[in-house]
Amino acid sequence: MVVMRIQFDETNLRAAMVGVAHGVTEKEIGKMAPRAADALAGFRRASEEGRYGFAHMPYRPALVKAILGYAASVRGSYETVCVAGIGGSALGAWALDCGLRGPHPVQGSFSAANPRLVILDNVDPTLVQAALDSMNPRKTLVLAIAKSGATAETVAGFLILRDWLTKKLGARAASRIAVVTSHGRGELSVLAEREGYRTFPVPENVGGRFSVLSAVGLLPAALTGVNIRKLLRGAAAMNRLCWSRDLAANPALRSAVMHYLVWRHKNKPIQVAFPYSNRLWGAAFWFRQLWAESLGKARTRREEKVNIGQTPVAALGTTDQHSQVQLYMEGPNDKVFTFWAVRKPPAIGRIPKQRVGLEAFDYLAGRSLAELLDAERAATAAALTSNGRPNCTFTLDRIDEEHLGAFLQMLMFQTAFMGELLDINAFDQEGVELGKRFTFGLMGRPGYETYRQRFQSYEEKRAAAGR
Amino acid sequence: MVVMRIQFDETNLRAAMVGVAHGVTEKEIGKMAPRAADALAGFRRASEEGRYGFAHMPYRPALVKAILGYAASVRGSYETVCVAGIGGSALGAWALDCGLRGPHPVQGSFSAANPRLVILDNVDPTLVQAALDSMNPRKTLVLAIAKSGATAETVAGFLILRDWLTKKLGARAASRIAVVTSHGRGELSVLAEREGYRTFPVPENVGGRFSVLSAVGLLPAALTGVNIRKLLRGAAAMNRLCWSRDLAANPALRSAVMHYLVWRHKNKPIQVAFPYSNRLWGAAFWFRQLWAESLGKARTRREEKVNIGQTPVAALGTTDQHSQVQLYMEGPNDKVFTFWAVRKPPAIGRIPKQRVGLEAFDYLAGRSLAELLDAERAATAAALTSNGRPNCTFTLDRIDEEHLGAFLQMLMFQTAFMGELLDINAFDQEGVELGKRFTFGLMGRPGYETYRQRFQSYEEKRAAAGR
Repeated sequence: MVVMRIQFDETNLRAAMVGVAHGVTEKEIGKMAPRAADALAGFRRASEEGRYGFAHMPYRPALVKAILGYAASVRGSYETVCVAGIGGSALGAWALDCGLRGPHPVQGSFSAANPRLVILDNVDPTLVQAALDSMNPRKTLVLAIAKSGATAETVAGFLILRDWLTKKLGARAASRIAVVTSHGRGELSVLAEREGYRTFPVPENVGGRFSVLSAVGLLPAALTGVNIRKLLRGAAAMNRLCWSRDLAANPALRSAVMHYLVWRHKNKPIQVAFPYSNRLWGAAFWFRQLWAESLGKARTRREEKVNIGQTPVAALGTTDQHSQVQLYMEGPNDKVFTFWAVRKPPAIGRIPKQRVGLEAFDYLAGRSLAELLDAERAATAAALTSNGRPNCTFTLDRIDEEHLGAFLQMLMFQTAFMGELLDINAFDQEGVELGKRFTFGLMGRPGYETYRQRFQSYEEKRAAAGR
Repeated sequence: MVVMRIQFDETNLRAAMVGVAHGVTEKEIGKMAPRAADALAGFRRASEEGRYGFAHMPYRPALVKAILGYAASVRGSYETVCVAGIGGSALGAWALDCGLRGPHPVQGSFSAANPRLVILDNVDPTLVQAALDSMNPRKTLVLAIAKSGATAETVAGFLILRDWLTKKLGARAASRIAVVTSHGRGELSVLAEREGYRTFPVPENVGGRFSVLSAVGLLPAALTGVNIRKLLRGAAAMNRLCWSRDLAANPALRSAVMHYLVWRHKNKPIQVAFPYSNRLWGAAFWFRQLWAESLGKARTRREEKVNIGQTPVAALGTTDQHSQVQLYMEGPNDKVFTFWAVRKPPAIGRIPKQRVGLEAFDYLAGRSLAELLDAERAATAAALTSNGRPNCTFTLDRIDEEHLGAFLQMLMFQTAFMGELLDINAFDQEGVELGKRFTFGLMGRPGYETYRQRFQSYEEKRAAAGR
């Protein structure tokens, strides 16, 4: 049985289409074969040794049972699931919600039978207030999601949500809260145990940006009616492809190799993820974190200083044709474009058959929006190719649980393989620590006094350098 | 009376803060003085000659009266304003709606007394269907916005909306439709006249991305309760600053010069617009079009081939600290960061005073979200500066009509000045034509048969180049 089909079309990355300065030759691809094999073997070893866990996520029946059991026990008691989480603790949930439940940015109606997801992924006071105003505390489940259990923004948002629930529900508030965090580590876990919140684990070997198919993404999805078994079935089917040593059969390894060649040999420091689908906009933002945080690194694994990283940009077709394509066509040839297409969109959205007698209107009469959308994608790819701008396309047969689970898993494999090709650690994020410590220092968190002092020295330097 | 205050802090762009390889010296700024004066004079001349119109938008009392009169005549008869428009015909309306009426992505409740804005800026069938499902045709005003009157996506969306209204309202549908398009030019204008739609003009000398303070942005804003007189008052106050020859008093010219030096002399091909405010997320996407489409050009005004353009990226603080900042800190030093801060956020969103006895939680007790948000921004700027990454900050005193009108106007002036410094035409967009023509060819629009043929040749070449 074919669970899903996702095709990778690399034709417009080839020198035959965009010229040898910007496109890849057969010879260059051939030369990569040993390195591709090493990348696959290297990541396979790390994965089997348990150093990195995302590839194991499709095979955890006990977790799925626990999540579905919890979801069944609370079903009907809420119309909103509110997540306090940021970065990898928010973007996976958004990618799934946007893809499977409603296109960005239109939010449909919601009810206890059809609950919605609200994500507090910032500490902007107007965002938090607007979210609170839109929710009924008697009909809201709160999820606090933070692997470390100490993320400042998530702690702040959660303390406000907890207070808001407690004021209405008193001691019953605890039964309306669930927590996803490291098992038995971190202060969120301590609070959860003390107050009796239901808790689900984030595996230690799964970082935030690789956690969409752990409880981090599965719990909010299951609570809002997504079929998480199908999601994992799609991811498992993709796993089988991504462990293949045959470059032609392994979409993640193939695309990692092609992107490596275009990025490093043809000097494309920017990657544009270009879905032609409002439903994939959340996934584009999720990918933006995956690619930036995994591959933006100061040093190789051998401590060689490289300051490497391809800047990901999310663009939405057709919308961004009227915003970014002028730059993409005529600006510097410093980008590689990855279109995300859908082969079989739902059969809705037909332009009325009745003609109005105007030339700029009537050629559209009776056509489907999906046909127009796909023609625009093909036209944009052709125009970029004509200007020597390398581009490629992933085509999902449909957007459903199987395909989305498979696609996200494929992008995680691609990222891991790219990390191997670059000889960097794609799984840490040391670069965000300094800003966090400055924040703790400024907010007076005990233990961060030196960072407060460092910040003050910086301000003094600014005063001297200023006008 | 001080209408608004917007400050530009360039300290962290200076060599004294980020080193001479990535920061600007006093000497380099001094050398730019004659070119800055020329840029100001050049754009002033073009503006006075009427070649470019955006600087005249704050001074059109007759248009304001017409819009407010129309708004008064329909008030109370709708709870949704639905815009069919894309690119410059959508992003300005979104920037104003997001900034003044509700933070991204939470949409509040709506009613006839407090109508909402729905923007159809794509032809994704699931988007269009979700929008239709969420609207009541008896309580919806439809706005079709397209300067040319022939934009395929807008025509498609409008034909569907027109049909949807007509099925419910019959002949009365025409009274629920208004059009913003070129006066007496284009087929949307012909249809409007024939069917009796209320029509508002887009001035010929105002392109889409510069049209937010024309009827393109003002009409949807006025219909959803934004005070457009205040918006224009803020823009007019900014105009006075932006025509100043004193570089220290002219924020648009000053920031254009600083950005020019950092981009061109310090090799920063990427600009990150980094609002620390969910309310400014719409404005960041509006800016993304303004900067990309105005400055991404194949040729100078003297037809010299340059393929120039700085790639704009929208990042949201604090959210993207947990997604993009790893790359920004450790990746290539190829970006300049422009923070957008707010000095006086609303006094809402306080973290509860009650301590929970956990160190990672209690330092936040009793603090305001706004304080945390601003500490994170300052901390991120300090961390980037420590790593030699140039950054600057625009600080708006508040987010209200005056400040938002002024800020958008300032960004348009900055873009026009940058075009002058680069000697490019910042007001055309020839690069998008090829893709449009391919689309017309593929959709069978009469007159585009050659583009259909060219597309077929391209497909044949692909078949030969493919696997």
